[in-house]
Amino acid sequence: MKQHQNLITVLTAIPVTLAFYLLIAPIFGNPSSAAAQSASIPEAEKPKYTADGELIPFSPDVYREWIWVGEPLTPNDLNPPEANFPEFHDVYINPTAWREWKKSGTFPEGTVIIKELTSVGSKNAVSGNGYFQGEFTGLEHVVKDSKRFPKEARGWGYFTFGHKYPLKKQAPLQQFASCAACHVANAGDDMVFTQYYPVLRAAKGK
Amino acid sequence: MKQHQNLITVLTAIPVTLAFYLLIAPIFGNPSSAAAQSASIPEAEKPKYTADGELIPFSPDVYREWIWVGEPLTPNDLNPPEANFPEFHDVYINPTAWREWKKSGTFPEGTVIIKELTSVGSKNAVSGNGYFQGEFTGLEHVVKDSKRFPKEARGWGYFTFGHKYPLKKQAPLQQFASCAACHVANAGDDMVFTQYYPVLRAAKGK
Repeated sequence: MKQHQNLITVLTAIPVTLAFYLLIAPIFGNPSSAAAQSASIPEAEKPKYTADGELIPFSPDVYREWIWVGEPLTPNDLNPPEANFPEFHDVYINPTAWREWKKSGTFPEGTVIIKELTSVGSKNAVSGNGYFQGEFTGLEHVVKDSKRFPKEARGWGYFTFGHKYPLKKQAPLQQFASCAACHVANAGDDMVFTQYYPVLRAAKGK
Repeated sequence: MKQHQNLITVLTAIPVTLAFYLLIAPIFGNPSSAAAQSASIPEAEKPKYTADGELIPFSPDVYREWIWVGEPLTPNDLNPPEANFPEFHDVYINPTAWREWKKSGTFPEGTVIIKELTSVGSKNAVSGNGYFQGEFTGLEHVVKDSKRFPKEARGWGYFTFGHKYPLKKQAPLQQFASCAACHVANAGDDMVFTQYYPVLRAAKGK
């Protein structure tokens, strides 16, 4: 009798599953594939949140050993009196997401992108006139998690721990208008400004 | 008879070895310690040379996954008509040397530092006015190997594969005056410009 019930369950499940993949999945994306990608992110690369959902920043000892993505520079002297993003932006990605980017050219669920900000320390060196890094000044994180973050931000959550030391020890999700809106409108590839990151462009889907 | 000769060899070796460590080693450094450090560098991080001693560059697929050290910028527009080092200098270190730097605050034998050069691609973005990376343009390597490279360069060998694509597939050791002399005179810590690299300063001997 129990075997009979199981058979009915299986036979019912087949058309339901088929209907899901043919009709529903193309609209909302493929959650089982997303879950599989997310599951492959190791514990050390998973973001940690407080009980009320604020993000706890990764340690510099961790993210400074991740994959470096690029470094835009918006110095104060070109953005008087002070740049919105002071001044060097050092950008890193977690290694598991990097491997997926190289493989498929997409950022998987569980992608973490870190933006560390440093000051301009010097404008002249023996190598020439220019901009040379000074001290660490700020920290921001972006996390791709479609279940946790709003659809309007395409599943990416933006967090800032401050642009001046001492940094915050936890931070709430930024409002859509503060960060995500600009990425939606201007970023080259899935909310990431790949147009300024030759390292990402060269590795994509390679 | 053979055993007797071996005994004499061993007994002679003891005072000679002692004399070396007490008198000679403090002057020229400790080669056995250097050899031990060098031995711990894995094959994938070891430089490869042609039969006539020219260095073969590491693949970007390898060094772009090493530890990022920092990124000075000497743009052409501040160094007319053209900067000596065009323009963004992305600097990486091999992971084994990085771990030793964190542990002891020294660069071990077998340290490889890569300088990849990229152009300025844009001077304005939604984040502000500034400098944004364009395309890869050049590549340089520095290798610490006291046995292979001259004492005047403190055991570091400098190699350039060009500042414009296509890059050279192998390169000879640069003359002392071309690179090393300037590092001897100006670099903050053992030929490395740590004064411009907060990532290195923060990790030193930590």
